[in-house]
Amino acid sequence: MELLPCRLSHVVIDESADRQTVFLEELGGGRHLAIGIGAMEAGAIQRAATKQRFPRPLTHDLLAEIIISCGRTLQAVRIVDMREGTFFAELVLVDPDGDVLRIDCRPSDALALLMRLPSAELLVAASVLADAGQ
Amino acid sequence: MELLPCRLSHVVIDESADRQTVFLEELGGGRHLAIGIGAMEAGAIQRAATKQRFPRPLTHDLLAEIIISCGRTLQAVRIVDMREGTFFAELVLVDPDGDVLRIDCRPSDALALLMRLPSAELLVAASVLADAGQ
Repeated sequence: MELLPCRLSHVVIDESADRQTVFLEELGGGRHLAIGIGAMEAGAIQRAATKQRFPRPLTHDLLAEIIISCGRTLQAVRIVDMREGTFFAELVLVDPDGDVLRIDCRPSDALALLMRLPSAELLVAASVLADAGQ
Repeated sequence: MELLPCRLSHVVIDESADRQTVFLEELGGGRHLAIGIGAMEAGAIQRAATKQRFPRPLTHDLLAEIIISCGRTLQAVRIVDMREGTFFAELVLVDPDGDVLRIDCRPSDALALLMRLPSAELLVAASVLADAGQ
């Protein structure tokens, strides 16, 4: 699978809607990908982007903490497929021996995690950018 | 710290309120503990309790998947403290060598995870039950 490096460009939060939109931008290529996500996950991305701190760890903070505490590194977040308007993502985790683990997840959780572990790469399948990129 | 075994008794969901309530019951002793949690986490607990399946993993499903994939076992969820009305929890994870890891979290995330990894124990500090139990 050909994967292209992207960055999280911005999140559009519409207080009157249940579904929010996160925009990814292809690095170098300049195409954009709009992914619909839930309000909770949009909030989790926005809070990390604006460096809001809460006294207690929120769910995606806990997710990041568990990955770190288990000695894993988040190497990449990949958007690997899009079928019938649903995007599919995976986390690529690496253990201390270099063994790689891929975990299926929703893009919204993957991106909320990426905001907390920003040294990971954001990669999107070339086929997804070709089909859904603008 | 003296810890007493409990079970998750029920969740009261009030559609008109932001905060929901989860009730724990002391096994043997019969005291109850009411903990206010967010609507998202209450939904995550209720969905697991009613065995609702979603086509894509939701955030707490992903949390459970990461723990399992990293070779850890959730041994216990502990409610360890209550200060100024805020409850404090921790996850007790065990690695294949038997090494124990404790991770600070909110009770809501801990209980949503417990519903997905139900072989773990639910323990509440005796001091918390003495102060807030009814």
